[in-house]
Amino acid sequence: MSRTDVHGTVADGFEPVREEFAAVVAGQDGRAGAQLTAYARGRRVVDLWAGDEVGGDTLTGVYSSTKGAATLVTALLVQEGVLDLDEPVARHWPEFAAAGKDTITLRDVLTHRSGVIGVDGGLTAADLADDTVIARHLAAQRPYWKPGSAYGYGGFVTFAMVNEVIRRVTGQSLQQVYDERVRIPYGLDLYLGLPEAEERRFRPVQRWTATPEQEAAFWSDLPGPHSILGVAYGLNGTPPLDQVGFANTRAVRANGPASAGGVGSARGLAALYAAAVWGIDGRPPLLKPDTVGEFAMPHSTGGDLVRGDQGNYALGFQAKGLRYAFLGANAFGHDGSAGSESFADPAGGIAFGYTRRRFGFGWSYPEHDRLAAAVHRAAT
Amino acid sequence: MSRTDVHGTVADGFEPVREEFAAVVAGQDGRAGAQLTAYARGRRVVDLWAGDEVGGDTLTGVYSSTKGAATLVTALLVQEGVLDLDEPVARHWPEFAAAGKDTITLRDVLTHRSGVIGVDGGLTAADLADDTVIARHLAAQRPYWKPGSAYGYGGFVTFAMVNEVIRRVTGQSLQQVYDERVRIPYGLDLYLGLPEAEERRFRPVQRWTATPEQEAAFWSDLPGPHSILGVAYGLNGTPPLDQVGFANTRAVRANGPASAGGVGSARGLAALYAAAVWGIDGRPPLLKPDTVGEFAMPHSTGGDLVRGDQGNYALGFQAKGLRYAFLGANAFGHDGSAGSESFADPAGGIAFGYTRRRFGFGWSYPEHDRLAAAVHRAAT
Amino acid sequence: MSRTDVHGTVADGFEPVREEFAAVVAGQDGRAGAQLTAYARGRRVVDLWAGDEVGGDTLTGVYSSTKGAATLVTALLVQEGVLDLDEPVARHWPEFAAAGKDTITLRDVLTHRSGVIGVDGGLTAADLADDTVIARHLAAQRPYWKPGSAYGYGGFVTFAMVNEVIRRVTGQSLQQVYDERVRIPYGLDLYLGLPEAEERRFRPVQRWTATPEQEAAFWSDLPGPHSILGVAYGLNGTPPLDQVGFANTRAVRANGPASAGGVGSARGLAALYAAAVWGIDGRPPLLKPDTVGEFAMPHSTGGDLVRGDQGNYALGFQAKGLRYAFLGANAFGHDGSAGSESFADPAGGIAFGYTRRRFGFGWSYPEHDRLAAAVHRAAT
Repeated sequence: MSRTDVHGTVADGFEPVREEFAAVVAGQDGRAGAQLTAYARGRRVVDLWAGDEVGGDTLTGVYSSTKGAATLVTALLVQEGVLDLDEPVARHWPEFAAAGKDTITLRDVLTHRSGVIGVDGGLTAADLADDTVIARHLAAQRPYWKPGSAYGYGGFVTFAMVNEVIRRVTGQSLQQVYDERVRIPYGLDLYLGLPEAEERRFRPVQRWTATPEQEAAFWSDLPGPHSILGVAYGLNGTPPLDQVGFANTRAVRANGPASAGGVGSARGLAALYAAAVWGIDGRPPLLKPDTVGEFAMPHSTGGDLVRGDQGNYALGFQAKGLRYAFLGANAFGHDGSAGSESFADPAGGIAFGYTRRRFGFGWSYPEHDRLAAAVHRAAT
Repeated sequence: MSRTDVHGTVADGFEPVREEFAAVVAGQDGRAGAQLTAYARGRRVVDLWAGDEVGGDTLTGVYSSTKGAATLVTALLVQEGVLDLDEPVARHWPEFAAAGKDTITLRDVLTHRSGVIGVDGGLTAADLADDTVIARHLAAQRPYWKPGSAYGYGGFVTFAMVNEVIRRVTGQSLQQVYDERVRIPYGLDLYLGLPEAEERRFRPVQRWTATPEQEAAFWSDLPGPHSILGVAYGLNGTPPLDQVGFANTRAVRANGPASAGGVGSARGLAALYAAAVWGIDGRPPLLKPDTVGEFAMPHSTGGDLVRGDQGNYALGFQAKGLRYAFLGANAFGHDGSAGSESFADPAGGIAFGYTRRRFGFGWSYPEHDRLAAAVHRAAT
Repeated sequence: MSRTDVHGTVADGFEPVREEFAAVVAGQDGRAGAQLTAYARGRRVVDLWAGDEVGGDTLTGVYSSTKGAATLVTALLVQEGVLDLDEPVARHWPEFAAAGKDTITLRDVLTHRSGVIGVDGGLTAADLADDTVIARHLAAQRPYWKPGSAYGYGGFVTFAMVNEVIRRVTGQSLQQVYDERVRIPYGLDLYLGLPEAEERRFRPVQRWTATPEQEAAFWSDLPGPHSILGVAYGLNGTPPLDQVGFANTRAVRANGPASAGGVGSARGLAALYAAAVWGIDGRPPLLKPDTVGEFAMPHSTGGDLVRGDQGNYALGFQAKGLRYAFLGANAFGHDGSAGSESFADPAGGIAFGYTRRRFGFGWSYPEHDRLAAAVHRAAT
């Protein structure tokens, strides 16, 4: 059996998705270790996998796709009136008011407009494994730009702030609320805090493939460790943050920090979005249409002060309607550093989940466009 | 007589404008059906036409150049204290408060920052013919981005919202105020609601010229029907909005919806701006310098969330000083989908009007730069 | 002795900076007349000069690098509670409230968000020599864009507004506060108002080198005199502002207008930033870390409505961490039209000053990147 063999099933009419997935996997020479799952209006229609030691129930690090689950928890609490998006964070977390952060709201944090993207002294890998530790460090930090004047993606720390607010307001962590309200009742294969018993299904994340010359050129093109990008990506830590090592660390998986520490499968990612909008397996949708509407609205667009590129952020989620031109205006989801992608497209009725074990060089994942388009074409 | 023959007159010193217009018409092979009129400090100095069945008093669809007339009405009412730009729209139109639109102001609407650019279910051509119908549909709609967080051009619906506010505040429609206060007293050949008696002067708008291959490539490059662009341009309607058919429909011309349903000539467009700033034919200017100043100030610049390009919007008007580098900072006006262009340049003393009957492929109108520059050079 | 000979000294470990400076000067054929000074944590480690009639103590026009000194004065007064960044300017200067400027704050002015970048009628060279005259003209002017909706660099007038606020609040001019609190106690070779006795050290600024064809092409590519760029750069004055003549006018040097009228050396520029952050010569730092933090935070990023390019502005200062990718996120400073550059990089411990007598064609100064990188590499 070749490692480019494609396993799994598709519903009638979704055969072209299987063909596109097979072409993607062949182009990767099977080395990425990929999974693809899709739902159409709450019904699973695509469930495929291929490559290195990857099965349909394999779990791997989904990095910032974790933010989708974390945002779903936030949206539930907003929907119930427990959280108020436009209240200052410091109302519930007084220490956060330091250094000009007193008027920053939860909405500012969720839309990456707070300017709080790391700390001057750097965060260690151990710090980044625990949202409460991250939050303690962030409380004293001055924002890296005037809050509200711009936005910049806070990859590894944003949801530690959200988590702290949730903890202060509810007495529970974001991870606890997620388990009780979302993961367990809906049976999602997506963990913010992976139980020891599930570790056997975890496959370590793999480094990207590059020559030493490519690798050296890549890093020399990046801004320095104390730049805004450097701070946001942990390059000012000692040692600098190793993203591959991050998800491969048991402490990270055990805690499941809400910005990037989640572990899951394509099944889990797709099911999360299907459960949010349409409901799955006879269970009702988690979010009301008005809540979906609020969280799917683009809030932060144009130039990203951290990444330097043009980003599209809704509220906690990424605005996928601006990412994929064929989707509806209110599509929303979140990708992840190792190449995961996930979203719901309410207009097209689609929930989409994709993972890969191996990073792409320079975080480049052209297959996202191909696979999302194939699912969209088949479903609409 | 060739269809590239140029008709009409120019004042002394404006012969180079005639030459430039002739060169433009020759380059179009006369097929665009073009008119060009200009005023210098309230005196008509250019009045030219050429091409397919077009005379100096021919009327055709001016699409979004209509917004210039609609904004002039708004400016008059603001100048008189009847409207307040910074009041929430919902204060006068309570239904508009739905779905997170309660704090959207008239200024937000006029500067394309409201996020209200269409409706999820699409609008039919019949809907788009009537501002009151459009307004009724928009009232319940959630904005397509967080109001105020970005701007995006609301081509076919923006002024239905303005019209509804005017109607609620004054008891008259924007079109009625326009007729009574602007068109009739100043004798403008620019109609928001074309009387049956003037229909004989109307020449239908013509489709752009393209091969089937060009046409297919053009549409496949556009975002999908449910994308922000698709919604704003009526592509999510059933059937999708046909822009050419729009102006060629009597109901549209009869109602003259304030976003894009106006009918006029280059004479009418140029005279509108001359009347606004300098007055014409012995009548005083409609706007005070402070009103011009307020409405000419750029408000929305940089990336346009609907169109994807870099736009320049003042208050209702487009900021023409940012569009044409040779004009003054406070030049203002509005172009239209079929290729019309119109503006005032207070610093240069110019009012400019241009129409064409035939759409340019991909809405591309390079002649705007040439003609505006020729008029500016001759006048200053 | 060739005019590309490099003079001066470097501390141990900074020899590569001398080599880079020598290479830069050789590339200029010595015609720029350059000085370079750097401090590492308050200790002078680089002090070099070369080229046309330039010594280590030569003074020349530093143009907008003046804004660094002016901002330092502002920061001192904010630090002491004398100024409030978020108060409307018009609270202390009532005439400024005219034409829609009543809510503009000192922070808006310092971050180039006020829209006040010149006046419709133009300012003469004599006007621009005196901050009180500039301020009087600006008071009545309508902003060139809706205040707060965008930013654009106000090269020659911004700090006349700041100065007027300081004068109204303290009874002293910005220049007087600078002399008493900064220049004299710290012995800085950087003047906002050059005493007659120091004129002997001044060397006139020199025009850039270009063929008549290059010169004509350059100006024809620029926006017109009444455009936003034209107004901001004095092109709408009669005659248009001659930047070279500006610094070469005794009245400008005598008054030292706070936006661009300063005169100094690289020693003066570097010492200013070293004094601000670390203190020099046994004197304490002028600014507390929290003040540095506030003034170093990026406030205005993305497209500049005046210049048309992408700018990076902190509060009064430029955000150098976004300009030079190798610096820390909170590096801050200001360059100048004739090619001066100056900044502090708190993360790297560096203060940097560079001047040149001769403008670079099209204000292009690629040596800034090379010299800043060389100093950073040697210091860290």
